[in-house]
Amino acid sequence: MPTVEWTGDGVRLIDQTRLPAEEAYVVCRSAQEVAGAIRDMVVRGAPAIGAAAAYGAALALRGPQPAEGLGALRQSRPTARDLFWALDRVAAAEDPLEEAHRIAREGVDACRRLGAHGAALLPAGARVITICNTGALAAVDYGTALGVVRTAHEQGRRPFVWAMETRPRAQGARLTTWELNRLGIPFRLVVDSAAGRLLQTGQVEVALAGADRVCANGDVVNKVGTYPLALLCREHGVPFYVAAPSSTIDLGSAAGDEVTVEERAESEVTDFAPPGTPAFNPAFDVTPARLVTAVITEDGILKGPPRDLR
Amino acid sequence: MPTVEWTGDGVRLIDQTRLPAEEAYVVCRSAQEVAGAIRDMVVRGAPAIGAAAAYGAALALRGPQPAEGLGALRQSRPTARDLFWALDRVAAAEDPLEEAHRIAREGVDACRRLGAHGAALLPAGARVITICNTGALAAVDYGTALGVVRTAHEQGRRPFVWAMETRPRAQGARLTTWELNRLGIPFRLVVDSAAGRLLQTGQVEVALAGADRVCANGDVVNKVGTYPLALLCREHGVPFYVAAPSSTIDLGSAAGDEVTVEERAESEVTDFAPPGTPAFNPAFDVTPARLVTAVITEDGILKGPPRDLR
Repeated sequence: MPTVEWTGDGVRLIDQTRLPAEEAYVVCRSAQEVAGAIRDMVVRGAPAIGAAAAYGAALALRGPQPAEGLGALRQSRPTARDLFWALDRVAAAEDPLEEAHRIAREGVDACRRLGAHGAALLPAGARVITICNTGALAAVDYGTALGVVRTAHEQGRRPFVWAMETRPRAQGARLTTWELNRLGIPFRLVVDSAAGRLLQTGQVEVALAGADRVCANGDVVNKVGTYPLALLCREHGVPFYVAAPSSTIDLGSAAGDEVTVEERAESEVTDFAPPGTPAFNPAFDVTPARLVTAVITEDGILKGPPRDLR
Repeated sequence: MPTVEWTGDGVRLIDQTRLPAEEAYVVCRSAQEVAGAIRDMVVRGAPAIGAAAAYGAALALRGPQPAEGLGALRQSRPTARDLFWALDRVAAAEDPLEEAHRIAREGVDACRRLGAHGAALLPAGARVITICNTGALAAVDYGTALGVVRTAHEQGRRPFVWAMETRPRAQGARLTTWELNRLGIPFRLVVDSAAGRLLQTGQVEVALAGADRVCANGDVVNKVGTYPLALLCREHGVPFYVAAPSSTIDLGSAAGDEVTVEERAESEVTDFAPPGTPAFNPAFDVTPARLVTAVITEDGILKGPPRDLR
């Protein structure tokens, strides 16, 4: 079942806050409900956020107060580029719902094409380290970075995954392990801090991350912890690839330091500390372009900055 | 109350697995009980492990089967150098219990002297990032890296601490926050992966870590995640200091790749994943000497490899 799906009168989302304990679905029937689901991370992952927002915009444009609905969606989360890209597309379309369908369909198609381009970069039996969740749950279906692994697996290239748990929301531990189990792809879970040990002991051939926004100069804004991973990869001569559909590439952001990095609630960080412990919770970081070996898109492998494509 | 204390017929330990929810103590009356407490991390932190092991050895040497007791202690954990150093000292001493007392006393004294040397390295108002727990709980009292911060605080230098939570056992979130609260030192808790974001946004002046073993060439074996932190510090020109008493310096280990890095139970990693999820759990990593600005010891600041002191 796709992560994001139109039901006729609303958009159905698999509730990612309840996985892996429970496979539950919610249906949002207004733009405000979709905005809440994005904010609370019922739906997350840049392409999935984009598709959910597209349907949310279609709902807004049917209602009596479209500007309020679109505004709520626009303010739901600040960093993922797909959100704004999808809202702009739907708002400008003649038939908003048809445009939302097109965004969802194109997103799945982009993941499959991206997967094929990326799989060719993986040596047989590659041990691939990933951060966060970049599988079907992060997109409408199939996935970005994990879609690359999935394609390689389907091609018989026997990839193995080191899944970083991805604190504080543990998307790696909760969602990536759930998807890899269902796909039958071998993996082991590690704490985020173990990436250095894996790399220094030669247990990683490739790193694959998704992106929330790829800037014109090639800087990548992605889940906090991506930047340290990329730095480790450079230190150990391991390629660091970013898998992102073109909807995540933002030629309007010149560089990573222009992008708003969301700071989320302190309470997300205090699982092991007494409630009320002061915390700081930046949800993303910026991986400078020089640390990125290439960006894998549906149109091919991008080795230079996206702005050169203009 | 000290972390490790002789009671007359055994050694009393504050149970660090139950902090911060509960301040409970356990008394170990045999070497086997001490070995179990070390293995299960009731007591942890290299100098605290050393002192506990010293009392454990004194208990073994009073008993009917000293070799068994010493053997159990020697096998309790493989990486912290203080453990083996303390066992060798007590085993060779004329009066084992007196030697254990001396080790405990000297350990506290070393922390205080180390703190004074280290505090001089901190600029006023420095924002200090730390990993794991290196305070009084990690030593018999006062602490190593956190002892440096404590001295700076007592001197009115107004340090601020970024406490990395330190997955999987969350010593930063559970123990460092507990100690900083009691000491009145301002801090904020961050997930381990946020270190990169803090450094790339210029929010860190100094990094301070403890050590489980400092090798002859200056390589530092410490809590997993220390190496990525040190690499980030080099990238951003931030000094990376290691605070370790001379009991942690092992001239018998030429370099980090000779040291046994403990792999702990997979179940420590699966808090957010279904039980039984395959995991990999290396407890330590190796920070190469070239990334270490200096080692702060009780005898002063060591800028070159320890082997040059021979």
